[in-house]
Amino acid sequence: MRKVITFGETMMRLTTCQYRRFSQSTAYESAFAGGESNVASALAKWAVPVAHVTRLPGTDLGDAVVDSFKSLGVDTRFIQRGGGRLGLFFVEKGVSIRAGKVIYDRADSAFATLSPADFDWPTILEGGSWFHITGITPAVSEQAARACLDAVQTAHRMGITVSMDVAYRSKLWQWGKRPADVIPELIKHCTVIVCSPHDTADLFGVYPHPNEEPFRSVCQQLMGQFPALSTIITTERGQLSASHNTLLGKCWQGEKLLVTETIDIPNLVDRIGGGDAFMAGFIYGSLTAKDTLTALRFGVAASALKHTIDGDLPLASIEEIETIMNGNTSGRLTR
Amino acid sequence: MRKVITFGETMMRLTTCQYRRFSQSTAYESAFAGGESNVASALAKWAVPVAHVTRLPGTDLGDAVVDSFKSLGVDTRFIQRGGGRLGLFFVEKGVSIRAGKVIYDRADSAFATLSPADFDWPTILEGGSWFHITGITPAVSEQAARACLDAVQTAHRMGITVSMDVAYRSKLWQWGKRPADVIPELIKHCTVIVCSPHDTADLFGVYPHPNEEPFRSVCQQLMGQFPALSTIITTERGQLSASHNTLLGKCWQGEKLLVTETIDIPNLVDRIGGGDAFMAGFIYGSLTAKDTLTALRFGVAASALKHTIDGDLPLASIEEIETIMNGNTSGRLTR
Amino acid sequence: MRKVITFGETMMRLTTCQYRRFSQSTAYESAFAGGESNVASALAKWAVPVAHVTRLPGTDLGDAVVDSFKSLGVDTRFIQRGGGRLGLFFVEKGVSIRAGKVIYDRADSAFATLSPADFDWPTILEGGSWFHITGITPAVSEQAARACLDAVQTAHRMGITVSMDVAYRSKLWQWGKRPADVIPELIKHCTVIVCSPHDTADLFGVYPHPNEEPFRSVCQQLMGQFPALSTIITTERGQLSASHNTLLGKCWQGEKLLVTETIDIPNLVDRIGGGDAFMAGFIYGSLTAKDTLTALRFGVAASALKHTIDGDLPLASIEEIETIMNGNTSGRLTR
Amino acid sequence: MRKVITFGETMMRLTTCQYRRFSQSTAYESAFAGGESNVASALAKWAVPVAHVTRLPGTDLGDAVVDSFKSLGVDTRFIQRGGGRLGLFFVEKGVSIRAGKVIYDRADSAFATLSPADFDWPTILEGGSWFHITGITPAVSEQAARACLDAVQTAHRMGITVSMDVAYRSKLWQWGKRPADVIPELIKHCTVIVCSPHDTADLFGVYPHPNEEPFRSVCQQLMGQFPALSTIITTERGQLSASHNTLLGKCWQGEKLLVTETIDIPNLVDRIGGGDAFMAGFIYGSLTAKDTLTALRFGVAASALKHTIDGDLPLASIEEIETIMNGNTSGRLTR
Amino acid sequence: MRKVITFGETMMRLTTCQYRRFSQSTAYESAFAGGESNVASALAKWAVPVAHVTRLPGTDLGDAVVDSFKSLGVDTRFIQRGGGRLGLFFVEKGVSIRAGKVIYDRADSAFATLSPADFDWPTILEGGSWFHITGITPAVSEQAARACLDAVQTAHRMGITVSMDVAYRSKLWQWGKRPADVIPELIKHCTVIVCSPHDTADLFGVYPHPNEEPFRSVCQQLMGQFPALSTIITTERGQLSASHNTLLGKCWQGEKLLVTETIDIPNLVDRIGGGDAFMAGFIYGSLTAKDTLTALRFGVAASALKHTIDGDLPLASIEEIETIMNGNTSGRLTR
Amino acid sequence: MRKVITFGETMMRLTTCQYRRFSQSTAYESAFAGGESNVASALAKWAVPVAHVTRLPGTDLGDAVVDSFKSLGVDTRFIQRGGGRLGLFFVEKGVSIRAGKVIYDRADSAFATLSPADFDWPTILEGGSWFHITGITPAVSEQAARACLDAVQTAHRMGITVSMDVAYRSKLWQWGKRPADVIPELIKHCTVIVCSPHDTADLFGVYPHPNEEPFRSVCQQLMGQFPALSTIITTERGQLSASHNTLLGKCWQGEKLLVTETIDIPNLVDRIGGGDAFMAGFIYGSLTAKDTLTALRFGVAASALKHTIDGDLPLASIEEIETIMNGNTSGRLTR
Repeated sequence: MRKVITFGETMMRLTTCQYRRFSQSTAYESAFAGGESNVASALAKWAVPVAHVTRLPGTDLGDAVVDSFKSLGVDTRFIQRGGGRLGLFFVEKGVSIRAGKVIYDRADSAFATLSPADFDWPTILEGGSWFHITGITPAVSEQAARACLDAVQTAHRMGITVSMDVAYRSKLWQWGKRPADVIPELIKHCTVIVCSPHDTADLFGVYPHPNEEPFRSVCQQLMGQFPALSTIITTERGQLSASHNTLLGKCWQGEKLLVTETIDIPNLVDRIGGGDAFMAGFIYGSLTAKDTLTALRFGVAASALKHTIDGDLPLASIEEIETIMNGNTSGRLTR
Repeated sequence: MRKVITFGETMMRLTTCQYRRFSQSTAYESAFAGGESNVASALAKWAVPVAHVTRLPGTDLGDAVVDSFKSLGVDTRFIQRGGGRLGLFFVEKGVSIRAGKVIYDRADSAFATLSPADFDWPTILEGGSWFHITGITPAVSEQAARACLDAVQTAHRMGITVSMDVAYRSKLWQWGKRPADVIPELIKHCTVIVCSPHDTADLFGVYPHPNEEPFRSVCQQLMGQFPALSTIITTERGQLSASHNTLLGKCWQGEKLLVTETIDIPNLVDRIGGGDAFMAGFIYGSLTAKDTLTALRFGVAASALKHTIDGDLPLASIEEIETIMNGNTSGRLTR
Repeated sequence: MRKVITFGETMMRLTTCQYRRFSQSTAYESAFAGGESNVASALAKWAVPVAHVTRLPGTDLGDAVVDSFKSLGVDTRFIQRGGGRLGLFFVEKGVSIRAGKVIYDRADSAFATLSPADFDWPTILEGGSWFHITGITPAVSEQAARACLDAVQTAHRMGITVSMDVAYRSKLWQWGKRPADVIPELIKHCTVIVCSPHDTADLFGVYPHPNEEPFRSVCQQLMGQFPALSTIITTERGQLSASHNTLLGKCWQGEKLLVTETIDIPNLVDRIGGGDAFMAGFIYGSLTAKDTLTALRFGVAASALKHTIDGDLPLASIEEIETIMNGNTSGRLTR
Repeated sequence: MRKVITFGETMMRLTTCQYRRFSQSTAYESAFAGGESNVASALAKWAVPVAHVTRLPGTDLGDAVVDSFKSLGVDTRFIQRGGGRLGLFFVEKGVSIRAGKVIYDRADSAFATLSPADFDWPTILEGGSWFHITGITPAVSEQAARACLDAVQTAHRMGITVSMDVAYRSKLWQWGKRPADVIPELIKHCTVIVCSPHDTADLFGVYPHPNEEPFRSVCQQLMGQFPALSTIITTERGQLSASHNTLLGKCWQGEKLLVTETIDIPNLVDRIGGGDAFMAGFIYGSLTAKDTLTALRFGVAASALKHTIDGDLPLASIEEIETIMNGNTSGRLTR
Repeated sequence: MRKVITFGETMMRLTTCQYRRFSQSTAYESAFAGGESNVASALAKWAVPVAHVTRLPGTDLGDAVVDSFKSLGVDTRFIQRGGGRLGLFFVEKGVSIRAGKVIYDRADSAFATLSPADFDWPTILEGGSWFHITGITPAVSEQAARACLDAVQTAHRMGITVSMDVAYRSKLWQWGKRPADVIPELIKHCTVIVCSPHDTADLFGVYPHPNEEPFRSVCQQLMGQFPALSTIITTERGQLSASHNTLLGKCWQGEKLLVTETIDIPNLVDRIGGGDAFMAGFIYGSLTAKDTLTALRFGVAASALKHTIDGDLPLASIEEIETIMNGNTSGRLTR
Repeated sequence: MRKVITFGETMMRLTTCQYRRFSQSTAYESAFAGGESNVASALAKWAVPVAHVTRLPGTDLGDAVVDSFKSLGVDTRFIQRGGGRLGLFFVEKGVSIRAGKVIYDRADSAFATLSPADFDWPTILEGGSWFHITGITPAVSEQAARACLDAVQTAHRMGITVSMDVAYRSKLWQWGKRPADVIPELIKHCTVIVCSPHDTADLFGVYPHPNEEPFRSVCQQLMGQFPALSTIITTERGQLSASHNTLLGKCWQGEKLLVTETIDIPNLVDRIGGGDAFMAGFIYGSLTAKDTLTALRFGVAASALKHTIDGDLPLASIEEIETIMNGNTSGRLTR
């Protein structure tokens, strides 16, 4: 299998213990996570050759991030070291009717202060079949946005599949430009994007036409604007409570709207990273399965299973995900 | 906003870890809690000026109780220090079909052995707008009952709103008098009480009339007996399992039975303190909202949210409670 | 009450913390457990005189197993000490749609390498009224199977009720013989067995007849084969998710199929040991109740409550189990 | 070996985690401990037949105390159940130059409110060879003092060795009589006491004569007063810091002052229970060794080793204690 | 007693559990700490009226810092809220021959980005008797240095005692000016400073004269340069290992070198915050004791005791510190 | 740098929490460790290219071992998967005068049941400069001994430096042959061994001559027997208590006895793995330093530092070890 490359910030995630609130917390569980490296980690767990590209400080904490990638088998050769601090985020998990909260602390991180020229994309991408970023990366800083553009242009030129989870978060954009000035430039070079009607409204002013299935409707409009784009995927989450969600996936490739079955996820453990598990699963499925619907269903199953696992990563085997995909969500004990 | 004063015992709560049974427990999580101080703590968290009046031993444990009040902003100037021991209670949380258990260990505590004359109520209550006790306090000892009566009489005379959560628990009354001899004397001076048809049956022999809404029926009878009383409130809890409750609030002020929507609380974390959060929420609402129904709905929302939080206190912001009150119980992650 | 005797391996159970996966685990909670000793422990907790017979290594870990039995009041006088190692099993608890996993590590344990001649069954069983094994024990090794046969023959001859939970697990049978060569020999001496249609299919090639209630159908066939057998019981588990099961019990004694009500078990804590709690409850009920249905209902209630308790044992009182049996599964807080 | 009987209160010990102060503590480790039951537990661990006599509340917590005795093999048949509460004590362990702190909370416990008449001492003591109490027990309440006197008189009359660790703590005596009115009455019936010159000064006004070895000097005076007394033992503790102590033992039997070597105890883990381990070790030694010095040295070694073990009990084997006794305190790893 | 005011950054301290290295850490204990607020917290614990001035973000984490001050009784009215992030530092405690490590992460914190004009020093300092800063604060940013200068000038003008712990750390000075350009300007307004010969060499090029006691020698030179300065204090730490230090204090007021006895601190728990405890103790002593040597000895005792307490604060009573000061460092258990 | 290869069993290490005894333990900290893989892990941490060769079961636990190697950068390509179980060992850490205890549970592990023919040594060793085993590996089973011999013969033939830590443990040899029949055959192919006079006495009957430095004396005798052997090293441990050791290293290469300074290690955290850290440090030093004494001193410093780190591995940087090597063992805090 040819390798996948991801690019984006990896942070320390500090989560309050059990369901404690920030105001009650005297200890935090720590792990390392980021939208793009979550995808890389999941793929590595499933034995896909994958490299993650990022920038980390030269401290013991930066070393620990690298070691955590290595433990999963992610290629860390292209990680830059330097800059002042490791980005962080604090998490208070939701439960029952109480919403989870995330406090980001990623300003002026080693990643946000990277130098685009330090990344030699032709070398990094050599031998790659898929390159993945998210819309969070260009939001972080002007340099990060520049690096994204360099990367997707190079990848596109090299014939590599380029995917982006647009993951629009307005609060993050503080460095001057508006997302609408930047994201479309990136999508021009993308083959696959994760994008919902909410995102298209906010980012492009693209709304579903009345009386049309909303996702299909915005996809049709987007496809017209971005000729390189061949596939748009999304998940729809039913939010019964913070402890009970449902999930399904949709995909538009220009002809027929693909929709998966809905997976019910009661007693969920940790929903952060669910979107990244979907993306990772879709990439895995695209690289291995014969049809797009199977890839989409694998992505949804990987994401659903991730909701039962502590931390950002879908630490589950292919077999376990396929069990879910086959509708076996009864959780019967394996002896 | 003029200040609220609460009076009652604060104990150390020792809870087995996770869902362990007493027989399995080799460690306990500790916190400080009591029906009335829970109300004071919640109000302080919401920036209402509030003083809690109690008696605590002069030990490091007593100091720790005071510090915990101060951290929330509760005025601790009127707390007496002295006596032998800190009251305790041991908690084994319920889960699924298994009921929670509480073992009280509050006999001969510093609070139970207080001297009523040590409390200078006119000074304590000066500048106050609301005074709150529960029916647990007079149950503890003769001295505590005496202090309650002194306090409510003084407060009533000073024109302060007096509330009592009657919280009838027959097992606690060991000091000689029957609750029916004491509680009505206190209610004579109350403006607001929390009282259910179960309580009225046990305490006053007041039963709902057939074919009437039971809460309204007992309220109408009580109102006749206690002219100072203007408001009776209660919650009705649906108990699907120890991990799944529902909650609604009712209020009778002589004219129209106010009933809130029902809030569904799946995967609940800790239900102890739910009633105190309801009372605190109703006081907050009464002091700030234009109408009683809003106050009642705020109380129910505060109580419901408390069920998702470890410990006795509704450690949540006004905004978070209003989110629940506005029907948003989907627990969507806030980034 | 005359005493109960159980025979089988007791292992160290090492469970990942909370719901961590094996790959995430840096610590394990440890306890001691085994199908037969779980039954003994439960009965001892309920004040039934009970002895457990097993073989444990002469190490500090073996000592700790013995101490844990003593704490519950199990008679440990007939436990053999010697051999190399304590059997182990690693547990990753299931949650939501994710299945639990068990990794057994019991090969060459002190128990598996026992000498049948070391167990003086007439002495051990003297004064006993009930002897219990499971179908796991003969699977462990040839010596263990031999000891089982010695034990059930002796017990049968002495007029003691003999029960076996057939608990067929094909993976365990590694020592040469097929279960179908061994289990029936044991059942010949049994009065009571726990056995489902799945078990009979795998073990005896006995399948339900079409259009008959499957459990009754296979029971009728088995009863014909094993004249000593008077009672066959089973549970039927509804597996909504790893966190939500339902449970009912069935019993066939040759005349009328007894079926209990179904108990719904949401938010379950730990399902391992549920079957042993059912067996223990049925034995307790049989020794104390006037009718079989009550015994069966006690068994199902004990099993359901066990699902809410961490670890293999139904650490609950008779009163708590009867509360569940009486349909009170609302988990209301006991103050 | 004939059995040992101990009598006294067993409490829940709640210890802050690691070296946290009470003011920093949000959790407590719990265990069950008491001066006399510590002796019983140690002896049971060393396979001496031993019964502990006490009174415990009828709650789940009382049950847990009984189970903890049973796990060690202590005979619990003579434990009374009833009364309101389990005595408690809170512990903050000392470290470095910081002193440890203990907050007792044992007033009005089930033990303190026992009825002396409920204890049938002739039956309890039947078959016993040694009876042990401490001077803490008569300090607790008048009833407890009465029960002590009944017990030692009966034991003395039955020819049983009676030992008392006088353990004088002035703060505990709150029930009316002065210790000097009570303790001597008890010592009249004692064969062996643990007593230091500090104790004799406070309790009897007995001071060492100048220019004499102080312990021998007070022993000689005491022996004159109490004809039944044949042996007085004590430890001398060098207190370099809360983490570094030294320990030696002394014994006077009327002829020659026996003194053990000094054991150096650096990096100590928990010194509470050290005195009880000494007593238990001396009893064990007296029952098994040929000479008193060996018994004394075993007691000191047991006590020293106890300082390295978390909790009140010297959970160590005879072999491990003998290793220390033989001067091997190098702590070399045993593989 | 008139109030003390402190000014400086308060951060979240994230400490690895036990003695784990950063590379081994999957959880962090969290607390809030900073050189100046540590002084304020200690003084508040000892019942000195004290206000801390700082700037904190408007997040739940900022709220938690404020609550932690309130629990100790620190006046928080002058705390500014705003800015992006809470400063952090990660701690790996040293032990044995292994050095502790601190990773600072305080760039661009809410404090570093404060506006000097937002602090109304005449109002803040009104009624104050002592104002304290450290040399870390002006190192943080140009704005922070400006605020320090405003504050010390105003305090000096108002006749308030001004103290500064110069605490020179070269790595922190990143904002343009050299410490030698800034620190002397601040010292001009100081009455008391903490300063060692190492600091004077680095900051002022002031070296001890040969054959003179080094501290006295540099003090004499400094006193000549700064007429407002009346007192210079320091500690000398003997560093036997990361787990074993010794400590003494020195003070120069122009006439006689005051030197305390040396306190030996074996088995130390946490040395961070030791210097702040010394400063707090010296301030407390200066406000309450009759002579400087007593104040100095109180400071050293407070600092020594702090080394035995987890976290940055000397959470000990006046009595406990005086026990150490009186030479009682044997750590004898207090019952 | 050319690569190092190690061969031996890696086990799960289960350590009781803090200093709990096995009998007190309800949880275990888990990690993966083994004499040879500890060497590989340390070298990888120090950026030496290194591969570890072993056999692990195909379970999730086996996967976790592999992941832990990968996180450190150890090449895992030559690890065999298969067989029944993962070897284990249980650890109770020593403290103060109490000895640590290890309970091995490695019989019939995946490693012990390996097939020698499955290891293609010429391929595995290709490009290697150093091959390392210990004397524990041939003790495990006949197959393991056979694989060791194959490996050292091949390595010797390929001109690779071969080292063996003879680590003689008589209890492990259960498979038939005596160590004296096997170890010398292996040493024939070794260039470097770790061996003490105790080992030579037990293994070869080689004793020091009177009046000679014992290590030199036995080395001279061994060198005569094994012509391939050029270097013998050892450590001498001073065992003041389980918490306080001293350490020095010795080396004999035929001419002059090299002896390092003694490092004092007070308050030690975990001594298991200390010997492996010495070996790893000596290999690192031999590969990088210009003289043997420097290599030896690096080994001793790495070993000493390892004693301050939880777990089997010296997780410290080259710089940290050199700090110790340079005599800086004061543990001064690094900010």
